[in-house]
Amino acid sequence: MFRKLNEECGVFGVYANTTTDVASMTYVALYALQHRGQESYGIVVNDKGVFTHRKDLGLVPDVFDKDHIEKLGQGNISIGHVRYSTTGKPSRSNAQPIVVRHVKGPISIAHNGNLINAHELRKHYELRGAIFHTTNDTEVIAYAITEQRLKRSSIEESIEYAMYSLKGAYSLVIMSPQKLIAVRDPNGFRPLCMGHCKDGSIVFASESCALDSIDATFNRDIDPGEIVIVNKDGIRSIRTHCKKKKSLCVFEYVYFARPDSIIEGTCVHDARIRAGKLLWKEHPVDADVVIGVPDSGLDAALGLSQASGIPYEVGFVKNRYVGRTFIQPSQKMRTNAVHIKLNAVKSVVAGKRVILVDDSIVRGTTCQRIVSLLREAGAKEVHMRISCPPFINPCYFGTNIDSKEKLIACQMTIPEICQHIGADTLGYLSVNGVQSLTSESLKPQPGFCTACFTGEYPISVPKEMPKDKFESKIGE
Amino acid sequence: MFRKLNEECGVFGVYANTTTDVASMTYVALYALQHRGQESYGIVVNDKGVFTHRKDLGLVPDVFDKDHIEKLGQGNISIGHVRYSTTGKPSRSNAQPIVVRHVKGPISIAHNGNLINAHELRKHYELRGAIFHTTNDTEVIAYAITEQRLKRSSIEESIEYAMYSLKGAYSLVIMSPQKLIAVRDPNGFRPLCMGHCKDGSIVFASESCALDSIDATFNRDIDPGEIVIVNKDGIRSIRTHCKKKKSLCVFEYVYFARPDSIIEGTCVHDARIRAGKLLWKEHPVDADVVIGVPDSGLDAALGLSQASGIPYEVGFVKNRYVGRTFIQPSQKMRTNAVHIKLNAVKSVVAGKRVILVDDSIVRGTTCQRIVSLLREAGAKEVHMRISCPPFINPCYFGTNIDSKEKLIACQMTIPEICQHIGADTLGYLSVNGVQSLTSESLKPQPGFCTACFTGEYPISVPKEMPKDKFESKIGE
Amino acid sequence: MFRKLNEECGVFGVYANTTTDVASMTYVALYALQHRGQESYGIVVNDKGVFTHRKDLGLVPDVFDKDHIEKLGQGNISIGHVRYSTTGKPSRSNAQPIVVRHVKGPISIAHNGNLINAHELRKHYELRGAIFHTTNDTEVIAYAITEQRLKRSSIEESIEYAMYSLKGAYSLVIMSPQKLIAVRDPNGFRPLCMGHCKDGSIVFASESCALDSIDATFNRDIDPGEIVIVNKDGIRSIRTHCKKKKSLCVFEYVYFARPDSIIEGTCVHDARIRAGKLLWKEHPVDADVVIGVPDSGLDAALGLSQASGIPYEVGFVKNRYVGRTFIQPSQKMRTNAVHIKLNAVKSVVAGKRVILVDDSIVRGTTCQRIVSLLREAGAKEVHMRISCPPFINPCYFGTNIDSKEKLIACQMTIPEICQHIGADTLGYLSVNGVQSLTSESLKPQPGFCTACFTGEYPISVPKEMPKDKFESKIGE
Amino acid sequence: MFRKLNEECGVFGVYANTTTDVASMTYVALYALQHRGQESYGIVVNDKGVFTHRKDLGLVPDVFDKDHIEKLGQGNISIGHVRYSTTGKPSRSNAQPIVVRHVKGPISIAHNGNLINAHELRKHYELRGAIFHTTNDTEVIAYAITEQRLKRSSIEESIEYAMYSLKGAYSLVIMSPQKLIAVRDPNGFRPLCMGHCKDGSIVFASESCALDSIDATFNRDIDPGEIVIVNKDGIRSIRTHCKKKKSLCVFEYVYFARPDSIIEGTCVHDARIRAGKLLWKEHPVDADVVIGVPDSGLDAALGLSQASGIPYEVGFVKNRYVGRTFIQPSQKMRTNAVHIKLNAVKSVVAGKRVILVDDSIVRGTTCQRIVSLLREAGAKEVHMRISCPPFINPCYFGTNIDSKEKLIACQMTIPEICQHIGADTLGYLSVNGVQSLTSESLKPQPGFCTACFTGEYPISVPKEMPKDKFESKIGE
Repeated sequence: MFRKLNEECGVFGVYANTTTDVASMTYVALYALQHRGQESYGIVVNDKGVFTHRKDLGLVPDVFDKDHIEKLGQGNISIGHVRYSTTGKPSRSNAQPIVVRHVKGPISIAHNGNLINAHELRKHYELRGAIFHTTNDTEVIAYAITEQRLKRSSIEESIEYAMYSLKGAYSLVIMSPQKLIAVRDPNGFRPLCMGHCKDGSIVFASESCALDSIDATFNRDIDPGEIVIVNKDGIRSIRTHCKKKKSLCVFEYVYFARPDSIIEGTCVHDARIRAGKLLWKEHPVDADVVIGVPDSGLDAALGLSQASGIPYEVGFVKNRYVGRTFIQPSQKMRTNAVHIKLNAVKSVVAGKRVILVDDSIVRGTTCQRIVSLLREAGAKEVHMRISCPPFINPCYFGTNIDSKEKLIACQMTIPEICQHIGADTLGYLSVNGVQSLTSESLKPQPGFCTACFTGEYPISVPKEMPKDKFESKIGE
Repeated sequence: MFRKLNEECGVFGVYANTTTDVASMTYVALYALQHRGQESYGIVVNDKGVFTHRKDLGLVPDVFDKDHIEKLGQGNISIGHVRYSTTGKPSRSNAQPIVVRHVKGPISIAHNGNLINAHELRKHYELRGAIFHTTNDTEVIAYAITEQRLKRSSIEESIEYAMYSLKGAYSLVIMSPQKLIAVRDPNGFRPLCMGHCKDGSIVFASESCALDSIDATFNRDIDPGEIVIVNKDGIRSIRTHCKKKKSLCVFEYVYFARPDSIIEGTCVHDARIRAGKLLWKEHPVDADVVIGVPDSGLDAALGLSQASGIPYEVGFVKNRYVGRTFIQPSQKMRTNAVHIKLNAVKSVVAGKRVILVDDSIVRGTTCQRIVSLLREAGAKEVHMRISCPPFINPCYFGTNIDSKEKLIACQMTIPEICQHIGADTLGYLSVNGVQSLTSESLKPQPGFCTACFTGEYPISVPKEMPKDKFESKIGE
Repeated sequence: MFRKLNEECGVFGVYANTTTDVASMTYVALYALQHRGQESYGIVVNDKGVFTHRKDLGLVPDVFDKDHIEKLGQGNISIGHVRYSTTGKPSRSNAQPIVVRHVKGPISIAHNGNLINAHELRKHYELRGAIFHTTNDTEVIAYAITEQRLKRSSIEESIEYAMYSLKGAYSLVIMSPQKLIAVRDPNGFRPLCMGHCKDGSIVFASESCALDSIDATFNRDIDPGEIVIVNKDGIRSIRTHCKKKKSLCVFEYVYFARPDSIIEGTCVHDARIRAGKLLWKEHPVDADVVIGVPDSGLDAALGLSQASGIPYEVGFVKNRYVGRTFIQPSQKMRTNAVHIKLNAVKSVVAGKRVILVDDSIVRGTTCQRIVSLLREAGAKEVHMRISCPPFINPCYFGTNIDSKEKLIACQMTIPEICQHIGADTLGYLSVNGVQSLTSESLKPQPGFCTACFTGEYPISVPKEMPKDKFESKIGE
Repeated sequence: MFRKLNEECGVFGVYANTTTDVASMTYVALYALQHRGQESYGIVVNDKGVFTHRKDLGLVPDVFDKDHIEKLGQGNISIGHVRYSTTGKPSRSNAQPIVVRHVKGPISIAHNGNLINAHELRKHYELRGAIFHTTNDTEVIAYAITEQRLKRSSIEESIEYAMYSLKGAYSLVIMSPQKLIAVRDPNGFRPLCMGHCKDGSIVFASESCALDSIDATFNRDIDPGEIVIVNKDGIRSIRTHCKKKKSLCVFEYVYFARPDSIIEGTCVHDARIRAGKLLWKEHPVDADVVIGVPDSGLDAALGLSQASGIPYEVGFVKNRYVGRTFIQPSQKMRTNAVHIKLNAVKSVVAGKRVILVDDSIVRGTTCQRIVSLLREAGAKEVHMRISCPPFINPCYFGTNIDSKEKLIACQMTIPEICQHIGADTLGYLSVNGVQSLTSESLKPQPGFCTACFTGEYPISVPKEMPKDKFESKIGE
């Protein structure tokens, strides 16, 4: 029931000046980035050019143990990855980072994003004799870099030239025997930031919350198109591809990122409080209490309460063990599955006119059940408010909003959705509103990708792109 | 670091009119009661007098699977238990419910609480030839009942007479081949309630949130001293022991119980909101923002905000994977472990005068670190407010507040604690205040055990009682 | 298919003069005794009166690891047990040794055998207030000892008096805080021997092969009825019960014991070689080659070859991974399951008259399939020889020959069995023969229990005794 | 201690005419081939061009379960592999068969053997842009085939041309969407045979024992250099490479293969019996008893007994749980580790002159301990006989005899080895002898690789070849 939109990945990398426990740092950072990918994880440690890795399906804290840290050993560079698959089935062999052994030296790559021309590139390389082991984009990127590597004098130059052929969203952390390299695609679809530890180690991460978790200091975001190279001589950038207009996924603010992360200068929590305030401005209604759907709607609910003066309350208690395995009870029991995970606080909602806030409606099923929980608990009215516009277009840049069929807003009008979920009123934040989340001035800001709401894609996209684009012939 | 006070157990029982999937019902209910005990769980199913059980260490969702449900099979009665040990080490053999095979018929017992005369009773039985397999109180209760069983005509009469020898806190759910029986000690230290399903099945649970999870309707609390017997002829009570003054643990409202549970007519969430309001009344201070320590301080923080008009905010983001295994990073990393689990939202607290609310201070270490997180994030002032009085006495009735050495309030004055944790001011809720949580009228209510704050024990307690009272000679 | 008769248990105990790694010694010894019980194991270590144990379902090498040895820790006494259940279902709570906590001091008991009056004793104790947690005999023995303990001055005296009430087969190893005690029932149904290590530690084991595995020297068998006590003052015996006629299970020689063990002065391998020789004497036949069913028939086949002069050969190759899990292939495949585990060596048997030797025929199914494998491989004639007489009576003394229905010899005459299994001829060793296995003089020796062949039970047995004698009302 | 020489792999493939449970067939066959590789296994099922696979570290029966079979599903072609690594570390990513996704269609390859030019080939492909994920030869073979694939009209033609570049030992089973193909290198270093099931399915396997296990009928060996293609039109061969002199590894007869397998027309058991007979002929000695080291020396011991007339006996009992995990006991215990796994039968060897037979001596340590066990058990004389010549040269064709340092025969003369292991006499089978194992006429037969004994390599070998040839820079 709590199946939501999914970000595909989180990446992390660290370059230490000496051989140290970089595996533990990566482990802690992935623990902080876990919300960006729960299907698989991987850590690669570089000890004087020898790459040791551990990859597995599952959550980092569930499948990674002390023994694994010890086996990864010491090193001075390490990269890590957590993954929710948008391309390629969840399988051990699709886990990242990928490690490539090559006569020119090994490299390891962790990737957050999605290429829109992966299929063409793959065919191109296969027709030249290449063999692919996985079904994910990262292997395509590895081939593109390797192709250049044979012609160029350095790994960073190879990446620079390979970027001419890569189209789409990619925030990369790449490790060679001597270097740690961070790359963000020219549109900057996905976030990527840089920081440093007290001892001078340099770190890269998808979100700043990962830096906080290891007591590193946030320095800055990687610019769209930038290549940052760290080695024993220090840090330098290649900015050849830094010319495009930025198109950061606005949904990072609305739902994907952790509230304590700061992306492009704006704290995610603040953006969500602001979303709640704008929602009230756009869709006011008389009510007694404002509550959020845990945990995705809580911040916007608080913002709406602040703007409206209607009291904020805790309307639902979420079972704190949700997220772990749950055995579906037998049909005989006929339990409402929602009750197992969420329970309304009757004294808070009974006899009240409730404004209920969440970040999005995908299929509508969960929303319908939550509204029904409120009605059963005695709510007199339920006014649903959603802190972003309706999804009506597929996303090609690294989320699982990949087809129109699953999107309720492609099937129904807003009044129909309102009736379907059983709410008294329903209001979505406007496109202008969602573009104003990072600004104090209420003016829509440039630099966002809002294609899922507007259909205006920052780069030209293919007519059709299957999720499992390389899986047509082979299962895992 | 998040080690807090611990409740010892949660119990559940169901009596269905026909053979059905009672194992699944118990599973779902234990999932809802999991916060009351994370060390071990157990489920016993009764199929026409044949008792099948499954007990194991660990969280229900982590160690219980579909295969186990199938092996438990169908039945018409089932009881279940989740446990945090106050007596007896965490071990598989100490898991409950215990199943006793006896010529007079098998019984199974699930127990929440702690006997203060278990040691004497055990010695008494051993000197008459008894053998004990476990180190927990429940086996002592089983002997007390069995001793009566040989003389009495029914299981309920045996329980009634056994209760004359049991001293302390016990909320029991007991199953015989034909009956499901719920028992609450004469002081009513621990909660226990009753409800019914749509199909007429009768259920008992430590908290009403378990009834909600299986879509059962709450009927009433079991009275202190009451024995409720359910069999094919219906429900009846034995009230011989229902004369004592009630002494419900007030800390069930402050921390132990789930906010959505209703105990003795008061919603736990409401009691906490009220605790926050009273805290403000008792300890007002000029401030810019009110925040709670997740998750234990959130409700009281909201209440304090409502009473004071100072804005409520989300000051910390908790890693949502906390609770799972976490490998302590090596010393070399020198990471502040708090950062891994909690992260302050800088934009919320920077430059602000913060009121920080939590439910209790045990050793002070965690509190100190959380205050320090706020300071690092730029808080100008930190005013700590605690929604209960200081602990200064050990508890003998089923919690782990078992010795004075670990309690900071036994070692320091309030100003010293304030300085120790690094706060600007510190205010605890008064004893009168905590006794008013269930009343609208602000008048302290009778019927609570507040011994841990006042030293006034509802029944006479032993001078000294070791946690592992039966373990002096034998390890596990 | 290879399901055979089963011995119930193996026991081991060690008394060291100093605190040392007794857990490892017990582990190694149980590894050597594993053939006597594959369902569960247990090890208890005594460190100055503190008993630490580990028990689990499964094979010792599969479920016991380094971490477990470390957790058991050091000590100066330890006992261990491997189990195949004849009484009580295979379950973790039925695993032995049992550990009993008692005001008079803890004891731990490991038991090989089966009581025939366990049911009566249990009822007796339950009617006096006792509670039983397991369904095995050992808990009954613990009660019998505890009952005496309250009246007697020492643990050994308690055992001595308890033995007056115990009827049946029991080889026990018992540990108290200060003592290690070995006990063999007055009939000596099951073996039990004593040895010493180079450092003076005293050890007891079901079979001498366990002594060899830890480089201990075999001293002697415990006498039937003897109680041997080891403590810091040395070794002494109580011989009050040493008057009965010995009735050692003859099937220990035929199948149960390991060939390298020496029981009552005779090497098991030698007894089996002799069984083969006597088989030839009793049932000669013209043939080209003698082969044994691996592994149970190999020794007797070699003996038959030596007596007859007909060449011994390796007729079957057994997959060396048999014993591990095997997933039954789907019906579609219609593979002969025997082929997966055994394969005939065609060049050895094709066109030959084969004498095939095994230790017993229980249901006949396996035997039938093995004969058929030989036919398919081209054997011209198959003459089946069995190295013991037909089973026609249930055993009450610690094996799983517990009902007549499963025994082919109770349903068919020998010619019928011969036809059923598809052999050309069939010969069983005679009762006189099996009683001569330990003698050079070919004269039947006294001192064996042969009741399963003859119905002459050494002690009076109950009319009927269910396998799960205590399980009539309660499942696990 | 029982660490011996290791074969590297076993392969299997099945082509069924209809969609059926080919996964189960492969599972059963791998169970029969398990002795050829215990480190990892893999099964790939082809369902109308969709390849589903399962690969893991460990023994097939230990790590493969019913759920895995179900997930592999139905299909009409399947290949499988068991592996002991000679090249590449034991790791999940190195497990075979490998599955290659390619625009020209997927293929899957299982390989037994070792290429001697893998390093050069790999460098060649990497310099053309290739990326390698594993460190095993099979991926090199995949590139060689893929390189041809882009130029040739069929998969079999691609294989045919790729074979011009592959040097060394390779028995391959290859699966494309429509075809199952078996390939044996032109020297025929490793065995590979073909058979059929009753329903007409065609199967390939490293050894015929795998065919027996699934009730398939053995048809013939694949010829050295032969490519056999099976598809819906039937079976056909490409014999372009069938011109070389055969060089079958003679050690397949001496130790690697299962005794019930038939390789190139000779039953392995018969070859070993013959080895024992020749040993006697070459190294006769007065003695009382002949015994073999279990299990590797048993067949040759029986042959030696038959030739000499000296009685064959069972001198050692092997713990039947050997092969499972064993925790090394602590130093304090000072147990002779040999006793845990092997125990001498004293009555068989005490006071006797013993001829002890084994297949080989690698380092000498195990042999020394076994001789010492016999001495301790009272053997008067110990005459060691080895059923092959001394190893004095590394093997490049798929075994782990990869360096001279570990080989005792490179360090010592035969009399020195005899003294080192503590034997009275020591005799090795001659090179002529080992070449006569498959002949009745006692004449050395051509067609064997005996390079490890003679240094005469059938094809020119590199000066030096590291075991982990691709691992110099990257760990796993």
